[in-house]
Amino acid sequence: MSANIDVRVREVGLRDGLQLIAGFFPTAEKLAWIRAEAAAGVPEIEVTSYVPPKLIPQFVDAAEVTRGALGIQGLTVVALIPNLKGAERGFSLGVHKLNFVMSVSRTHNLKNVRREREESVADLRRIVELRNALPEGARPLVAAGLSTALGCSFEGRQSVDEVRRWAAELAASGVGEIVVADTVGYGDPAQVRAVFKAVMAEIGPIPVAAHFHDTRGTGLANVAAALDCGVRRFDASLAGLGGCPFAPGATGNIVMDDLCFMLDSMGLSTGVDLGKLVAVRAVLERNLAGAELHGAFARAGLPRNYRSAAERMHS
Amino acid sequence: MSANIDVRVREVGLRDGLQLIAGFFPTAEKLAWIRAEAAAGVPEIEVTSYVPPKLIPQFVDAAEVTRGALGIQGLTVVALIPNLKGAERGFSLGVHKLNFVMSVSRTHNLKNVRREREESVADLRRIVELRNALPEGARPLVAAGLSTALGCSFEGRQSVDEVRRWAAELAASGVGEIVVADTVGYGDPAQVRAVFKAVMAEIGPIPVAAHFHDTRGTGLANVAAALDCGVRRFDASLAGLGGCPFAPGATGNIVMDDLCFMLDSMGLSTGVDLGKLVAVRAVLERNLAGAELHGAFARAGLPRNYRSAAERMHS
Repeated sequence: MSANIDVRVREVGLRDGLQLIAGFFPTAEKLAWIRAEAAAGVPEIEVTSYVPPKLIPQFVDAAEVTRGALGIQGLTVVALIPNLKGAERGFSLGVHKLNFVMSVSRTHNLKNVRREREESVADLRRIVELRNALPEGARPLVAAGLSTALGCSFEGRQSVDEVRRWAAELAASGVGEIVVADTVGYGDPAQVRAVFKAVMAEIGPIPVAAHFHDTRGTGLANVAAALDCGVRRFDASLAGLGGCPFAPGATGNIVMDDLCFMLDSMGLSTGVDLGKLVAVRAVLERNLAGAELHGAFARAGLPRNYRSAAERMHS
Repeated sequence: MSANIDVRVREVGLRDGLQLIAGFFPTAEKLAWIRAEAAAGVPEIEVTSYVPPKLIPQFVDAAEVTRGALGIQGLTVVALIPNLKGAERGFSLGVHKLNFVMSVSRTHNLKNVRREREESVADLRRIVELRNALPEGARPLVAAGLSTALGCSFEGRQSVDEVRRWAAELAASGVGEIVVADTVGYGDPAQVRAVFKAVMAEIGPIPVAAHFHDTRGTGLANVAAALDCGVRRFDASLAGLGGCPFAPGATGNIVMDDLCFMLDSMGLSTGVDLGKLVAVRAVLERNLAGAELHGAFARAGLPRNYRSAAERMHS
C-alpha cells in the first residue's frame, strides 16, 4: 500500500455490477471505465470474473479486459474466481490478484458455486498450493471472500461463530487477504463490529477487507463501524452499481464516490481525486441508459472551503 | 421517554421538508401524515413552524395543524420557533415542545433569522423566562437547535470550539434539550464524534439530539458515530424529505424509515413498527407527485428471518 494512502478502496462494479446488467457492456467501454478510474487514483479494480461465459455472458471478454487492465501503470488488477479452473485462467493471464469466493451460508454456497463449503475450502487449498509453486514474480496474491457473512437471503443472519469458523478455514489455506462480504445488505453497525472483531482476532495478521451493499441504507454506517475495528480496505462500485442474482431487492454495492468523499472528509487519504472520480460516471451514463445510478456526493459536490485529507496532512 | 424505548426518533419532514415544497400540502393531509406516523409508533413529531405565513406560506395552517396533532394520544407535538413571537404562539396553543433555532455560523444566522447570534441567545433567555412563569402543566419544553454545527454553505466547516461556545450559551439559557444540526449535510463520522463529544462534555446532563442531512451520503454513518457518543435522540424525515433554503444541493434529512430499520437491527428499540412506518409513505406519494422520495429500506424490505429489537429483548 502506498505510504500516502490510509485506506485502500477497490472498485468492484465491473464484476459485481455488470454481472446483473441485461445487455453486454462493450469491452472497449469496460476498459475506458477502468482506465479513467485508475487515472482518478483508484489503486485496485476487480475487472472481471473467470466464470464460464455460458453462465455469465457479460464476462466472455475476461481475457481481453484483463490484458488491457494489466497495461495500466500502477493499477492492481483483480479478478473473481469461483474455483480452480478460474485460478488457472488467472495464472496464465498474469493477473495481480485472485478473489476466490465462498459463502458462509451453506445454501448460498450451493446455489452460487454449486458445492459444499468444505469443497470450496479444499479447492482453495489447491489453488494456493499451485500459486505457491509458480515462479517468484508470477505469483498472484490470492484473496478469499466470505460471502453472506452478515446474512443470507435464504438462511437469514449467520452466527458470529459460524463466520469466524470459515474465516479460520480461509486463513489456514494460506490466503493473503480475507474479504468479509455483506452480499445482500443485511448488516448494521453493531453487527459489523461484532463480526469484524471476531474475524480479525481469529485470523491475526492477514489483512481484512470489507465488502458492503447499501441495500437498506446502512452501507456507509457499516464502513464507519468497520473503520473503528481497524479495517482499511473497502470494496465499492461507482454509482453503486451491483447486487446479487440470488438476492432479490439487493440494490447495489456501496457508492464508490460517496465512500471516497466520506473517507477523505474524515482525514483518511485514499489517493483518489474526487472530481476525477465523479467524472467517470459519464462512462456508465452513456452505456447504461435507463439504469439507476446512485450517489449523493455526485449531486451535491464538495462542501464550501473543503480541504482534502491530503491538504490537511500537508498544512 | 418510554421505558421500552432505547432511542427516540423525531419526525421533522412536516417542517424541514414541507418548507421547501412549492405547492401547499393540504392541512387535512398533513394531519393524516401525523396521525399515521404517530400510529406507527413515532413518539415525537415537529408538526409545523411558527414563522410569519408571508415568509413561508406552507405554515399558514400552523394553528390548525398544532391543534389537530395535540388531539393524538401519546404524541409529543413540537413546533419550530425562530423568535419570541413564535414562542408566544406556542404558549397560547399549548404545544408540548418548542424548538428554537439559531446557527453557529454568523452568516447563516443573519440570513435565516435576520439577527446576530448574541441577539438570538438573548431572545432565547426571554423565552425560557416566560415559559418558566407559566402555570405548572402549561409549560412546554424549550429545546434549542444549533444549526450549521457541522458546516455552513456560506462559511464552511465551523470549529469545534465555536460549536462548544454556542452550546454553552444555550445550556446557560436553561433549555431542556439541545439539537446539534448538520443543516447542509457536511458532516462525517470523525467530525461528528469530535463535535458531539465536545458539546456533551460542555453541557452536562442536558439531553442532546442529532439532526443530520444525507446530502453527501454520510447521514446514517453520522448516526452510528453519534450513537457511539451516547446520543439517543435523532431527527429524521419520512422518505428523506427536506433541505435548507440557503443550502443549494442539500438533498434532504436522513430517511426516517432507514434510520428506524438500522436502529432496530442494532437491537435498539425505537417503538416504531417498521411496516406501518413504510406504509405512511403513501401519504407523501399522493400529495407530492413527481417529488423524489428517498429510502432503501422501503424498497428492499426486511431481511429474511428478521427479528426485531423488541423480539430479541423478550427472548
